[in-house]
Amino acid sequence: MPADPRDPVGSLLEAVVDTAREVRGGEVAAYIPELAKADPDRLGIALVSTRGVVHEAGDAGTEFTIQSVSKPFAFALAVDALGLDEVTRHVGLEPSGEPFNAISLDAASGRPLNPMINAGAIVVTSLLAGPDADADEKFATVRAGLERFAGRDLVVDEAVFASEAETGDRNRALAFLARSAGTLGSAVDAATDAYFRQCSIVVTARDLAMMAATLATGGVNPVTGERVVSDAAARWTIAVMTSCGMYDASGEWLVRVGLSAKSGVGGGIVALEPGQFGIGTFSPPLDAQGNSVRGVAMLQALSSQFGLHLLGHRTEPLSPIAALTPSADGSETVAVLRGELLFASAEEVLARLAPMVSDDGCLVLDFAAVTRVAPGAAELFRHVPERAGLGNDGRPRVVVRDPEGVLASGQAHS
Amino acid sequence: MPADPRDPVGSLLEAVVDTAREVRGGEVAAYIPELAKADPDRLGIALVSTRGVVHEAGDAGTEFTIQSVSKPFAFALAVDALGLDEVTRHVGLEPSGEPFNAISLDAASGRPLNPMINAGAIVVTSLLAGPDADADEKFATVRAGLERFAGRDLVVDEAVFASEAETGDRNRALAFLARSAGTLGSAVDAATDAYFRQCSIVVTARDLAMMAATLATGGVNPVTGERVVSDAAARWTIAVMTSCGMYDASGEWLVRVGLSAKSGVGGGIVALEPGQFGIGTFSPPLDAQGNSVRGVAMLQALSSQFGLHLLGHRTEPLSPIAALTPSADGSETVAVLRGELLFASAEEVLARLAPMVSDDGCLVLDFAAVTRVAPGAAELFRHVPERAGLGNDGRPRVVVRDPEGVLASGQAHS
Amino acid sequence: MPADPRDPVGSLLEAVVDTAREVRGGEVAAYIPELAKADPDRLGIALVSTRGVVHEAGDAGTEFTIQSVSKPFAFALAVDALGLDEVTRHVGLEPSGEPFNAISLDAASGRPLNPMINAGAIVVTSLLAGPDADADEKFATVRAGLERFAGRDLVVDEAVFASEAETGDRNRALAFLARSAGTLGSAVDAATDAYFRQCSIVVTARDLAMMAATLATGGVNPVTGERVVSDAAARWTIAVMTSCGMYDASGEWLVRVGLSAKSGVGGGIVALEPGQFGIGTFSPPLDAQGNSVRGVAMLQALSSQFGLHLLGHRTEPLSPIAALTPSADGSETVAVLRGELLFASAEEVLARLAPMVSDDGCLVLDFAAVTRVAPGAAELFRHVPERAGLGNDGRPRVVVRDPEGVLASGQAHS
Amino acid sequence: MPADPRDPVGSLLEAVVDTAREVRGGEVAAYIPELAKADPDRLGIALVSTRGVVHEAGDAGTEFTIQSVSKPFAFALAVDALGLDEVTRHVGLEPSGEPFNAISLDAASGRPLNPMINAGAIVVTSLLAGPDADADEKFATVRAGLERFAGRDLVVDEAVFASEAETGDRNRALAFLARSAGTLGSAVDAATDAYFRQCSIVVTARDLAMMAATLATGGVNPVTGERVVSDAAARWTIAVMTSCGMYDASGEWLVRVGLSAKSGVGGGIVALEPGQFGIGTFSPPLDAQGNSVRGVAMLQALSSQFGLHLLGHRTEPLSPIAALTPSADGSETVAVLRGELLFASAEEVLARLAPMVSDDGCLVLDFAAVTRVAPGAAELFRHVPERAGLGNDGRPRVVVRDPEGVLASGQAHS
Repeated sequence: MPADPRDPVGSLLEAVVDTAREVRGGEVAAYIPELAKADPDRLGIALVSTRGVVHEAGDAGTEFTIQSVSKPFAFALAVDALGLDEVTRHVGLEPSGEPFNAISLDAASGRPLNPMINAGAIVVTSLLAGPDADADEKFATVRAGLERFAGRDLVVDEAVFASEAETGDRNRALAFLARSAGTLGSAVDAATDAYFRQCSIVVTARDLAMMAATLATGGVNPVTGERVVSDAAARWTIAVMTSCGMYDASGEWLVRVGLSAKSGVGGGIVALEPGQFGIGTFSPPLDAQGNSVRGVAMLQALSSQFGLHLLGHRTEPLSPIAALTPSADGSETVAVLRGELLFASAEEVLARLAPMVSDDGCLVLDFAAVTRVAPGAAELFRHVPERAGLGNDGRPRVVVRDPEGVLASGQAHS
Repeated sequence: MPADPRDPVGSLLEAVVDTAREVRGGEVAAYIPELAKADPDRLGIALVSTRGVVHEAGDAGTEFTIQSVSKPFAFALAVDALGLDEVTRHVGLEPSGEPFNAISLDAASGRPLNPMINAGAIVVTSLLAGPDADADEKFATVRAGLERFAGRDLVVDEAVFASEAETGDRNRALAFLARSAGTLGSAVDAATDAYFRQCSIVVTARDLAMMAATLATGGVNPVTGERVVSDAAARWTIAVMTSCGMYDASGEWLVRVGLSAKSGVGGGIVALEPGQFGIGTFSPPLDAQGNSVRGVAMLQALSSQFGLHLLGHRTEPLSPIAALTPSADGSETVAVLRGELLFASAEEVLARLAPMVSDDGCLVLDFAAVTRVAPGAAELFRHVPERAGLGNDGRPRVVVRDPEGVLASGQAHS
Repeated sequence: MPADPRDPVGSLLEAVVDTAREVRGGEVAAYIPELAKADPDRLGIALVSTRGVVHEAGDAGTEFTIQSVSKPFAFALAVDALGLDEVTRHVGLEPSGEPFNAISLDAASGRPLNPMINAGAIVVTSLLAGPDADADEKFATVRAGLERFAGRDLVVDEAVFASEAETGDRNRALAFLARSAGTLGSAVDAATDAYFRQCSIVVTARDLAMMAATLATGGVNPVTGERVVSDAAARWTIAVMTSCGMYDASGEWLVRVGLSAKSGVGGGIVALEPGQFGIGTFSPPLDAQGNSVRGVAMLQALSSQFGLHLLGHRTEPLSPIAALTPSADGSETVAVLRGELLFASAEEVLARLAPMVSDDGCLVLDFAAVTRVAPGAAELFRHVPERAGLGNDGRPRVVVRDPEGVLASGQAHS
Repeated sequence: MPADPRDPVGSLLEAVVDTAREVRGGEVAAYIPELAKADPDRLGIALVSTRGVVHEAGDAGTEFTIQSVSKPFAFALAVDALGLDEVTRHVGLEPSGEPFNAISLDAASGRPLNPMINAGAIVVTSLLAGPDADADEKFATVRAGLERFAGRDLVVDEAVFASEAETGDRNRALAFLARSAGTLGSAVDAATDAYFRQCSIVVTARDLAMMAATLATGGVNPVTGERVVSDAAARWTIAVMTSCGMYDASGEWLVRVGLSAKSGVGGGIVALEPGQFGIGTFSPPLDAQGNSVRGVAMLQALSSQFGLHLLGHRTEPLSPIAALTPSADGSETVAVLRGELLFASAEEVLARLAPMVSDDGCLVLDFAAVTRVAPGAAELFRHVPERAGLGNDGRPRVVVRDPEGVLASGQAHS
């Protein structure tokens, strides 16, 4: 198999990059002088599977500052450390319908509307490492966390940081507003200084893909194998990205593209589909909403050409019951189950097999060909044998055979 | 297997209803006098799988008016008939962060922010059956569509309709605003009258579950087998419900519950997970946001106890490569694939098998145990054999065996 | 005295018109097709004194539709008929900081923010002639009132009315919103139809000046002598024009121009200074806020060149005590007062004369040269003689001589 | 004349205080701990005429912190120093319809909406003493200015200042927002620190009355005779107080009370009528809008009982032509003018006398009994004699006699 067929995903990404190169328009961010120096022609993409395979095309190794793409990861670290309830005492979870730098404090609660806008992101950073931590401690916490998401050491672009700090009056204003509303978790300077450094961390499209893949796996870095945040923290973060990640275009993005995503003014975008993959893109020119023009184009292409839509109905699977085989002596019927048993397929299995439970023989549920059982599905199977009870011959009416223990692995999320 | 074990899903729903009966609080809607007559103690739930099996508990057959639960279905009919681009010329797709009766016209475009708020829903109804259709024609179109979603004939509660029409000045105001902004698709009276009747259609929790299941299957009613709307229309509708369905609590709902849902002041809620199931709940007392208190409680219980969260990472499946078997003569290696091959598992298969392609033997990809192949996955496999080319012996290096044609069934969505 | 010096005010207005003719910019209103037919070069102004003398220049007799200039006069009629408290149950008195067609219903009360925006003006018209009056009766009431303000019969431009009615969906929306909030005073159609006709009444700059002068006199038409509205109704109306009359530029207008004013998209503006004069201007091209460009220029010129600013401090007057003359026999001291005695000058008189009250002679306050006494000033003088009491000789210490009864004419406003 | 009649204004204020003492309700401000210590029963009022006479009643000498009452005076100092155009590049002049601590930056320009809300007031203070001045220099400038308004030295309540500084995060946020929008005139700390000290200046009701009287005279302290700000600066300030001084109740205040006013959370209110008087009130309990409950009650009583309404029509004055007397020889007609000649009375004089100008005799305009001539009025008289020209006998047709030079004193404002 020559280079090409050996990595069809890489080929696919190459094609996506080539097409995106033809897309014009957008302006490199100029509100921070250092950002304006970015080369507008750089263009890269990487995709990391939840098993940790890295595919990439174009300038996937070019460095740039993470900017707002850091927001979901900092949020994940905060909810992992403090729990969702504590974090949501300080910041809301609602889309704002407003631009990234909107003030958007909830009138009643004083909370920033969500952690994907600046006001909310600063509050998130203020919570890290506790109320008394200084900027150094907060930043150390967020950097260490981001490094675990990325699986490698990360550094700060000091020129960008200096530029952020110098032009950061609006962000300071947001921090003071949050503090006066009682929702900031620390001193203002500690929060804003750590936040400016957080935004100035240098990454590549490959890093972003790895970080996104770590969320997509439920919080475990697929290469290092390290659990970075809990499964619940990953799920909550993906949910917030889904509803708020693209600012005031989040609703349309979910309809038309259907990937959880977050963009940054440095030109990066992360995107992911839970349980499937993480993607990172890089191209500096931004549209009016501050999203990378070519990054958006690449993600739209992947969504429409490859059906990568969170909410897509998947084509009808084959039946989860591969075969129904009477044993030679007629005393058993073996139902050979197969594939992934989510709630719906478990429901199907049970609905179809219920009439076959009888006093006169044993129904064997064979899980040997089942690749996994989702928690809700496992819950459905849980008490079936005991409730079915014993038949006329004193043998169980229903028996489970699960040589690889897939049934036990399904657990409800916390 | 006695009654109970024969339907574990039904047992589960019974338990959910029993628990919800203990939940207190909420008020039956009173802004329309007829609604105030509802019995606050009625409580029911139904779940319909994408294969059309109906499970239910409590008062799943009690009739009530559909109210705002009609909004996503009318939207689905509109985008199915007119396309997404035409519909979005009239109504946006962004969460409003505002209550159901918010004015929320986008300042620049004059479009209501989304089709789940009243202003947007009236615009959607105005589009049905064309600009010149009168209220009767529009209503006939929307009722026929809802009947196809539900799989049965539906009637209007005339007393509620009269009440809606009498108290509908705010909705008339929204229609006139949309018309003056050029976004209403018909005469005001035609739109509002049809909309009032649409909201007054009588349904049960069972109907709502069936309607939701029809969206969850990608637009095909799982009992009647009728295609009601296109796969794309269903996906777009689910996306809009996901971001906007719970009004100004949509973001928190997605984080904490993670089911696409839409509530109505009649006490009903629909919820669904794509490709899995549709749910309908009924209980009249509403919270301050207008959502059924016990309906919300039942959906929260299902989500947390059974892991029914759209964005949940699913536990690690077994490898999609069940076995790698050399043929007796050593001339072939058979890779037995299994389960559902989504993009990520296809990516894994290819990444792992690439090194095994060689000049000296044929690699057989055996799809016999594969239950389905998602479009993006199929795309990855598409050109593998031809690109792998021929080996030293003139035989193909890679061969696909797909006795049930699952590979061909994967198609990118439009 | 030749033509010119005989009317210096007329000369002044001629000069103002000539200068304004050089002012460029603005667009004739086009949102109602009929309005777009106006001749952009027409330019006129009229000023009517509170004694009813009419001065004019340019096209002061050219007819146009009154549009929003009708709002303050309809408000004056409503508060005159129903009282301020009843009217403010339906509409607020606060500047909106928003454009003329803003929705601006107060969230808590459902009242339009003020009667100068469309929503508030429709509510005002809905109150005229009572809740059961139809459009004909309401319009008859408002027209009759406007005729009394103008001192002549007024007609409707039927083509403009038809155009207003055809394009009036936004105004209908505002009426439905107000009705659903419980603040509209009648059926929607009655209010909007009467309002559209009210806006289509044909006036001239001369009419507007007369109408404004009627407010400036405290509600009495200075030519016909008819009391049109109460003094209080006029004062309240002037106050609302002062704070809300120029929409979202009202604050800057009050600072820079300082005349109570109201503009209309027909090209007219009324302006006034209480107790001084009323002005009407006409020139069709409008600026972005909907105000006549040249009308604004003419009023700015009058304000800056002639010191016509409501809030201007007036140059120091001479002392209100013209002379202090002992009588020949030394038994009296006569204080000859002069000019207008407002609160401040009365305070001055009393402060200066208090040391002169003695047991040995009588202080005579002579009001013969006083032109008027304001209510607060009269209040200060009211009990002075009786409180001063009798001197040694049994004669009053203080005596008032008021041959023309100016002291009695001062009354506190209700 | 016993004590009482000697000061009828003082008696009036005593009565107003006695009545206000019966008014209940309101809460002493508690958001700054130090303010909560104020004695809620203190109640005082003072009125200072534009000639500098001081009247007072109750606790007019009790000290409290000036708080937001400082805003109009700081604005007056800024426009006096920098001009209206420069100041309005940084802060708008429009009512916000919002509470005192609203954010209210204009979306397009980044300017706070007006100088009476905190954001705008901080910007005003940032402009004083120039962009490079530190907090000490800025505060020195504003204190020196306020001292000239009050006519005495003023000190800071250091405990209140410390409290303001400690709880001032929201104000710091507003300053950072303004700075990021480019509208703050200095470093943030310099502006906020000076502003906190400015708010902590200690005054009495008597001081406030004197400060207001200084504005009412057109910028000259009526006791010290010092010109504190220009006539234009005073007029602009009064206009801003009129439209924005009472926050989101400014419109209703202007309708119902009709005095330019500004309140502070320390319990003080200033009010004035241009050319008439300044008032200061003090009573700590505040209503929900932050206005002193009894201070409002006292001002309402003064307005309604004494007709002190800016926009009141004043009762019809006597004719400004006191007499028309032919000279003994018939060669002259003497028109004896009287009182204050504003624009309107000058217009009346000219309109009535124009027919009497003839070739055969001289018309003498006698200004000896005229107390003053307003600028617009003087403009009308300016060229009358020369334009009337010479009669048959070579003598002027019109002659002016103005022994006290009142005609020359009228000047248009700049």
